[in-house]
Amino acid sequence: MKLALDAMGGDDAPQINVDGAVLALSKLSSLEKLYLVGNEAELKKRCEAAGIARDARLEIVHASEVVEMDESGLDVLRKKKDSSMGVSVNLVKDGTADAVVSAGNTGAAVAASTFGLRRLPGIKSAGIVSPLPSVHGYVLVTDTGANPDPAGPRLLVGYAVMAALMARYIYNRPQPKVAVMSNGTEDCKGSKFSKETFRALQELAEHKLLPFNFAGNCEGHDLLETDLDVAVTDGFTGNILLKSVEATAKAFAHWLKAGIKADFMAMLGALAMRRVFRRISEKLSADSIGGCPLMGVNGVSIIAHGSATGVAILNAMRMAEGMCRNSVNDRIVDTMGAINAYWNHDSAE
Amino acid sequence: MKLALDAMGGDDAPQINVDGAVLALSKLSSLEKLYLVGNEAELKKRCEAAGIARDARLEIVHASEVVEMDESGLDVLRKKKDSSMGVSVNLVKDGTADAVVSAGNTGAAVAASTFGLRRLPGIKSAGIVSPLPSVHGYVLVTDTGANPDPAGPRLLVGYAVMAALMARYIYNRPQPKVAVMSNGTEDCKGSKFSKETFRALQELAEHKLLPFNFAGNCEGHDLLETDLDVAVTDGFTGNILLKSVEATAKAFAHWLKAGIKADFMAMLGALAMRRVFRRISEKLSADSIGGCPLMGVNGVSIIAHGSATGVAILNAMRMAEGMCRNSVNDRIVDTMGAINAYWNHDSAE
Repeated sequence: MKLALDAMGGDDAPQINVDGAVLALSKLSSLEKLYLVGNEAELKKRCEAAGIARDARLEIVHASEVVEMDESGLDVLRKKKDSSMGVSVNLVKDGTADAVVSAGNTGAAVAASTFGLRRLPGIKSAGIVSPLPSVHGYVLVTDTGANPDPAGPRLLVGYAVMAALMARYIYNRPQPKVAVMSNGTEDCKGSKFSKETFRALQELAEHKLLPFNFAGNCEGHDLLETDLDVAVTDGFTGNILLKSVEATAKAFAHWLKAGIKADFMAMLGALAMRRVFRRISEKLSADSIGGCPLMGVNGVSIIAHGSATGVAILNAMRMAEGMCRNSVNDRIVDTMGAINAYWNHDSAE
Repeated sequence: MKLALDAMGGDDAPQINVDGAVLALSKLSSLEKLYLVGNEAELKKRCEAAGIARDARLEIVHASEVVEMDESGLDVLRKKKDSSMGVSVNLVKDGTADAVVSAGNTGAAVAASTFGLRRLPGIKSAGIVSPLPSVHGYVLVTDTGANPDPAGPRLLVGYAVMAALMARYIYNRPQPKVAVMSNGTEDCKGSKFSKETFRALQELAEHKLLPFNFAGNCEGHDLLETDLDVAVTDGFTGNILLKSVEATAKAFAHWLKAGIKADFMAMLGALAMRRVFRRISEKLSADSIGGCPLMGVNGVSIIAHGSATGVAILNAMRMAEGMCRNSVNDRIVDTMGAINAYWNHDSAE
């Protein structure tokens, strides 16, 4: 795999990306080429310090501008023509790299990838897929923020197909279980929009056009304690859901720490429980997931957390590698081709 | 206060409601009259066993039907004319009681209260307000499911006003901080609908018509770790948010328990930490909140959790008592009167 890494993306960039590069060069055997994109002088110095400057697989690609965390995605596209993010995406666009990883500004990464790579044939809107740790492994929530106002339920069918194929090929779930997020599990529950999505999926399921088991509606309660693989919703609801789940885990940890600090016995208890706490914190850490793919663009684009570490960058590259090796995009095009043919035929009748 | 309790509502009804009655009769000094509504013979027997049958404040009101947990709200209205829930609401409607508490089917409680009590003047849609424990106390999320498809941003202005007045009078926050749920905190972020709500609130804030500080957008991350008092959203998003937060807390507890079970040292540690765990579990317990008001109806209607215990029922009655004592509904009518006058004047211009 040839990978472009936006070396200036992330709260602690560029060092986290150099750390990620060090890890990837030693652990990711399929890595043929790693393009480290950003300020050349700075990156050269850090790569030398990290002892990877002479690795033949590494190539530093200069980019003179950096996307800030608070810039709007469209502003960046217009004004910063030579940003590390844009140059990284262009390496995929022109076929030099197979995939791009960035821990920079999410809105800008979505805009740069969507406008730079264009969408896959048959896909009308790209969506971010976020894996959430559940009691049974992971549940993939999509869209978590690429498009807060999807124009119709058929866009959500696309999200469901993309996330289901990711569940199959990246998370090894041959027949993923997919549900529509709603305010209750009964078929009659939902907003006008979620009900339309439900019906569109139900119709495709009846015609055996879905590469997954359609499980109807799911609600927040089902998310982490059932064997659900994919929960599909619009980017507005998905983003609020994702961040609320993260906030709850953080608040829980806050209450534990505050309780432990105030009580000497509990402090000893916490010491004895440290392995349990470490395992939970690893499970919930964004670093172990690494990054979330922006699915539906013509190329592989992985968006890592702004607070990513080198380990997160490595895991984001692993996600990119899995998407490339399993040709997930080709499978999306095939599946959506059949679904679009059904829709076109249906509306022509 | 005179209170109607739907004695047949809740997973463990009627006993939890009899337990709640026992607690309320001994602890709630403002309780003048408690109407226990349901199967008379059954309730009489249980009240006798609990030693409250002879309390002059208690009156059993017979209702021959029970609303099941999986019935649709509108079906119940049409078919079950003598349900314990409907009869309880009617006691408020005809002025016999000041407030109603039910741990029954939420959809049916919303339908029965909205159709039975009608809406407050100036309010176009009732909303459920759910207090979530945050690091700073509580954040009130509304609407959490009364109306999954609100017809316009002005309905959400109503939700914001109602929850803010609840924050002021029930949670003692003289100048509550209120924000609109969105997929990012920047002013430009949001769905079309949340942005319209943002602008409607901003305009009212400029004209000093809001009984709270309008803090702009908030995202999931802000929910539990800032000093936000109210987060306003549509009933679809709010319901998913609320249940996802509950699911995360449950999953966290699941991982802790599983880790402790598998490790003898951790088991000892957990024993030493039991006070900390108990405090967190009390904080997160739905029982300590008791119930969520359905705000905007002409009367006080509190919806308790289906899995409520007697303690939850007592706390739901306390919530009802606070709403009555502080005349929260009158204050809503005043505030919305001024806002509606501004809107009418504005559109007449």
